[in-house]
Amino acid sequence: MTTSLQNDSFLRALRREPTEYTPVWLMRQAGRYLPEYRATRARAGSFLDLCRNDELACEVTMQPLERFPLDAAILFSDILTIPDAMGLGLYFSEGEGPRFERPIVDEAGVAQLAVPDPEAELGYVMRAVRTIRQALGGRVPLIGFSGSPWTLACYMVEGGGSSDYRRIRTMLYRRPDLLARILEVNADAVAAYLAAQVAAGAQALMIFDTWGGLLADGHFQSWSLAPMRRVIERLRGGGSEAASVPVIVFTKGGGQWLDDLAGIGADALGLDWTTRLGAARARIGDRIAMQGNLDPMSLMADPEQVRGQVRRVLDSYGQPTAGHGHVFNLGHGISQFTAPEAVAALVDEVHAYSRAQRAAPGPVSDGGEGS
Amino acid sequence: MTTSLQNDSFLRALRREPTEYTPVWLMRQAGRYLPEYRATRARAGSFLDLCRNDELACEVTMQPLERFPLDAAILFSDILTIPDAMGLGLYFSEGEGPRFERPIVDEAGVAQLAVPDPEAELGYVMRAVRTIRQALGGRVPLIGFSGSPWTLACYMVEGGGSSDYRRIRTMLYRRPDLLARILEVNADAVAAYLAAQVAAGAQALMIFDTWGGLLADGHFQSWSLAPMRRVIERLRGGGSEAASVPVIVFTKGGGQWLDDLAGIGADALGLDWTTRLGAARARIGDRIAMQGNLDPMSLMADPEQVRGQVRRVLDSYGQPTAGHGHVFNLGHGISQFTAPEAVAALVDEVHAYSRAQRAAPGPVSDGGEGS
Repeated sequence: MTTSLQNDSFLRALRREPTEYTPVWLMRQAGRYLPEYRATRARAGSFLDLCRNDELACEVTMQPLERFPLDAAILFSDILTIPDAMGLGLYFSEGEGPRFERPIVDEAGVAQLAVPDPEAELGYVMRAVRTIRQALGGRVPLIGFSGSPWTLACYMVEGGGSSDYRRIRTMLYRRPDLLARILEVNADAVAAYLAAQVAAGAQALMIFDTWGGLLADGHFQSWSLAPMRRVIERLRGGGSEAASVPVIVFTKGGGQWLDDLAGIGADALGLDWTTRLGAARARIGDRIAMQGNLDPMSLMADPEQVRGQVRRVLDSYGQPTAGHGHVFNLGHGISQFTAPEAVAALVDEVHAYSRAQRAAPGPVSDGGEGS
Repeated sequence: MTTSLQNDSFLRALRREPTEYTPVWLMRQAGRYLPEYRATRARAGSFLDLCRNDELACEVTMQPLERFPLDAAILFSDILTIPDAMGLGLYFSEGEGPRFERPIVDEAGVAQLAVPDPEAELGYVMRAVRTIRQALGGRVPLIGFSGSPWTLACYMVEGGGSSDYRRIRTMLYRRPDLLARILEVNADAVAAYLAAQVAAGAQALMIFDTWGGLLADGHFQSWSLAPMRRVIERLRGGGSEAASVPVIVFTKGGGQWLDDLAGIGADALGLDWTTRLGAARARIGDRIAMQGNLDPMSLMADPEQVRGQVRRVLDSYGQPTAGHGHVFNLGHGISQFTAPEAVAALVDEVHAYSRAQRAAPGPVSDGGEGS
């Protein structure tokens, strides 16, 4: 499939193969900062209606690609589709984000959990993948994704977002047996879901570990990292196309655990903006590609200031060399308050400056003090 | 003053001198998890009324010491007293935390900022310090504190807490000149405020950098770390008692910047629960004492489970040796939902197990994998 791509720079960077410039895409690139997204969303009804309509999900997936020369598309969906398919009843309340009607509150709830069949119970996602893949026509690769087993568990036990995730952290200390069972089911569900996305046409996969950074050291390794490793092992061992698809893992707040994260079999590591990209590269860049890590809030500045911050990130990574790979991205999802002009400046500067880096010797990877 | 203390284990640990056991106190130890606190608070009126009444502030400061053999007391106050004294109008709205009536929204607001005179404009804090110090009667040392310059600026610009601190992060990228001026004033204000607390009787100081972890690498060093260094330099160079008082800095989410933090002249470094204590000690433990770092949510478990988690932290730090120091604490403030029995188990286990560690060779500092 890769050979039919008109632009495979993203996949090559993930495989740590040479690229002519640094490929770029943005987390939540199809989203509320775009007026055309808001228009489609208004036509669709709710956010979930939009996710469940493959034509409209495809429409919003394509919108940022029409505006900006991005190097990858990402499936428009939600990270919580799996627990919804498990029967927890996902809904979105105004201003409060995702909620579940039937969170897991006790041992009986845990005992009822089962791995959903992706084609049967998450068919709308697979239809969206197929529709988007066709619409892309080989222009850029399509990324499929899921929440990490731990991150799904956070929402499943809390019943939604939380300021302190007290319920699941209490479960971790009081009933680790229950948490272990949830994570076991989630890991198998995520693996099956991601494999199905690849079968439907996804050409790379990303695991969003949004809440791994909440965990104590030691517990992160046991409760977030190990289930992600299990997901990747299942994908690799499945004997299907998913066995060779590039996988990106992204633990927000995971900067202290880069060595651990580099060892779970993923191809690339997403970094948030608190981590020094050059230092991370010096440490693990010969083992795994890097994705990131511009502060999304830097896009609140003027386009010229945005370009300066983009160069700062590219300088931190340094001159690309054999066996290393970098995909430019934000360190977290783009803010709804971002001006599209700032995104245009970002994408243009990534491409222009990274081409210039390759053409002439520039600043090298800054393992040292940031500026 | 130290010589008149009945229990100076906390101060000795901060100075990396030998102690018979690991001293312990808890961030927010005077707080809502104690029924006697809730009773005093109800008598006082609002939270700010409680902070501003030195007799009642003293009463709640002493309450946890009556229940548990803690090794330090901490002034009962708020981290936002300084911007309130600057005229921003601090208030607390139900369920929303601290707010300012007059946040800093423009250049004119920045130009008006001035360093408050601590005795004249924050006299109620100094009265509370004197009253508490007298009530303590040398039982344990009294800790004074302030928010860090950056953390104060976050609330001053946002007008309260925020999910993304978009306003101040936008200022950072668009108008770094304004942010620099705010931080300059804040650093001088924090230094004057902390020096006044020492003059009034505080025997150690803590700087709470609650939001330093929001910053991009490089920006943390410029916008959070450098102003904290300025505070400490002012304290050290002031020629008063504050020149020699132990200072603890605590950047929540600062685990990636331990080397930077160890170099700003503080005596001890507070660590949140995501950092591996043994690894941090191996890296910087001969330069600076450590404070932390039990996950506050581990206190949601049964007392026996709490004891196990306490031992895990003490084992991670390992056997105390010459030139190293550890103060046991949580990695963040105690939750209002904590059972006092869990705190009793924590304090007892810290004292008992750390005495046993000193008496017999135990597990050594675990720079390696957590468990």
